[in-house]
Amino acid sequence: MALFESLAVVGPGLIGSSVLRRARETGLLADTLIAADISPAVLDRVRELNIADVVTDSMAEAAQADCVMICVPVGAVEATARAILPYMKPGSILTDVASVRGKLGPTIQALLPEGVEYVPGHPMAGTEHSGPDAGFATLFENRWSLLVPPEGADDHAVQKIQILWELCGARTKILPDDKHDRICAMVSHLPHLLAFTICDTADNLSEEIRAAVLDYAASGFRDFTRIAASDPVMWRDIFIANKNVLLETLDRFVADAQGMAQAIREGDEAAITARIERGRRIRRTLIENRQA
Amino acid sequence: MALFESLAVVGPGLIGSSVLRRARETGLLADTLIAADISPAVLDRVRELNIADVVTDSMAEAAQADCVMICVPVGAVEATARAILPYMKPGSILTDVASVRGKLGPTIQALLPEGVEYVPGHPMAGTEHSGPDAGFATLFENRWSLLVPPEGADDHAVQKIQILWELCGARTKILPDDKHDRICAMVSHLPHLLAFTICDTADNLSEEIRAAVLDYAASGFRDFTRIAASDPVMWRDIFIANKNVLLETLDRFVADAQGMAQAIREGDEAAITARIERGRRIRRTLIENRQA
Ligand SMILES: NC(=O)c1ccc[n+]([C@@H]2O[C@H](COP(=O)([O-])OP(=O)(O)OC[C@H]3O[C@@H](n4cnc5c(N)ncnc54)[C@H](OP(=O)(O)O)[C@@H]3O)[C@@H](O)[C@H]2O)c1
Ligand SMILES: NC(=O)c1ccc[n+]([C@@H]2O[C@H](COP(=O)([O-])OP(=O)(O)OC[C@H]3O[C@@H](n4cnc5c(N)ncnc54)[C@H](OP(=O)(O)O)[C@@H]3O)[C@@H](O)[C@H]2O)c1
Repeated sequence: MALFESLAVVGPGLIGSSVLRRARETGLLADTLIAADISPAVLDRVRELNIADVVTDSMAEAAQADCVMICVPVGAVEATARAILPYMKPGSILTDVASVRGKLGPTIQALLPEGVEYVPGHPMAGTEHSGPDAGFATLFENRWSLLVPPEGADDHAVQKIQILWELCGARTKILPDDKHDRICAMVSHLPHLLAFTICDTADNLSEEIRAAVLDYAASGFRDFTRIAASDPVMWRDIFIANKNVLLETLDRFVADAQGMAQAIREGDEAAITARIERGRRIRRTLIENRQA
Repeated sequence: MALFESLAVVGPGLIGSSVLRRARETGLLADTLIAADISPAVLDRVRELNIADVVTDSMAEAAQADCVMICVPVGAVEATARAILPYMKPGSILTDVASVRGKLGPTIQALLPEGVEYVPGHPMAGTEHSGPDAGFATLFENRWSLLVPPEGADDHAVQKIQILWELCGARTKILPDDKHDRICAMVSHLPHLLAFTICDTADNLSEEIRAAVLDYAASGFRDFTRIAASDPVMWRDIFIANKNVLLETLDRFVADAQGMAQAIREGDEAAITARIERGRRIRRTLIENRQA
């Protein structure tokens, strides 16, 4: 018996279609797979890929599933939830995979019909590609999925979403929304912002320097640019959705960079090496944890 | 016949011992290889590794070579040149591999005895390790070596250093000092400064966030940390030696980051995506150039 009788993925892009593929390959997530989207092109492609049993543009039809997983861009999650929730059955679970929580949790919690549970979970996995063709069944293997159930969420529902992610190959952790957003600002949003920015800075320099950056990127610059290839609209939405925490984290970073600049300006050797050494500590621990 | 009768490497660490290994393996760089250092421990290790024919702590002995290559840390290059130059023979070439030029070129140029040429070259290759054990013969393969001969340098001497690096597997380019330093600030020094700083920022956060960074580093943070493992003393010296250009490049970066922050604060979607798109352009070109 599968975890759910039916699972509906709304927005079968990179993340959503990866869940569908995993469900299709293992048969363990749900007996019936539903894919829903407002885009006919996406639905056609999902039909061609044959990764769902039911392919529909009707939110009411998707809402009949035991578990409805919203995988649309961050900025569209709330509107999508509003369109689906009125049709959801008592005993069913709504989840989403949004990369930023902000006020999403309490907002959607307040809209829940009687008997419907809301247990969002953010898989810390992705690539720089998007759309139904970008997904693959192993995307979540050995990655974390951060569950952010609202206070008072039903234990049984939380456990089912936990199992869902474990069946996708992920490890899970339960966190409050604000901690989730602070962590993601540091480990993901700030690095992306810096990566986009260093590319932007290089692009703004003289033609001569731009050309040199391309020739000599292997000397350090390259490491910063892999993540800079990610989808601009998705990252725009994430930056805006996590605005306050991200800008605060950026402020700390800029203050630290200016501290380093000051030490360099003054030729304060001890202060420079102290800062470098502090940074190396984290790196060493990452290597010990085999994350690098 | 080898390129030089004798080649002396002063400071056989990562870079210097890599040149010696390459010379030893191919036999093409020099008939006699000399390794010189002020550290007895380094000299003992070089003897054990058997990567030079003559191993000495005498700068006067090293100075007898046709080509003397100074591979000590940036901050020690000038003093080492002052110790060696008085003993060098007419017709011989002095070179160094310093990662920052600053005023080094004209300073050493002014010290040259009659008939000695000075042609420094900076190999854009390295690892996060140092010392004679860290070197390997293929370190420079398919990397650039940036030659920065002083104005009026002898063409024949420049050509010999060019061939030396090509025999090490590198491609060469000739640049003026100031352009070299501006390029390296952008492609190497600024990325290292940012990498050290983001690790430092993460380290300064709460214990909870630090732990999370280690758990979830794969989400972007990790890409920044590989280069943050590099040697603190070497990078301290580089930052100080290239202070003016580096701080100017950092200022541009911080201004660009604050421009992005402003766009995020105002929720200016078009401005955010425009900045992200500009960054992606460089990334795309890197991929086309197969540098990423
Ligand atoms: N990519 C990552 O690295 C990553 C990681 C973890 C979590 N997430 C989260 O996963 C979610 C989806 O990201 P993704 O990378 O999978 O994006 P994606 O590949 O672009 O997929 C999004 C899907 O949602 C559809 N869609 C867009 N707007 C919609 C709307 N208003 N109503 C219904 N469907 C809509 C899209 O169709 P069209 O193509 O026609 O617009 C597409 O099929 C986001 O919430 C994101 O924060 C992403
Ligand atoms: N590593 C890179 O990524 C890289 C890339 C391109 C160019 N470079 C340049 O290459 C040079 C050497 O860097 P490296 O990475 O090879 O460093 P390294 O491995 O630390 O080697 C430096 C060597 O110089 C010796 N030394 C230190 N101070 C000296 C002094 N005052 N007089 C004589 N010998 C001294 C060291 O001996 P002890 O160990 O006893 O101090 C060591 O044998 C630097 O100028 C650097 O800018 C480095």
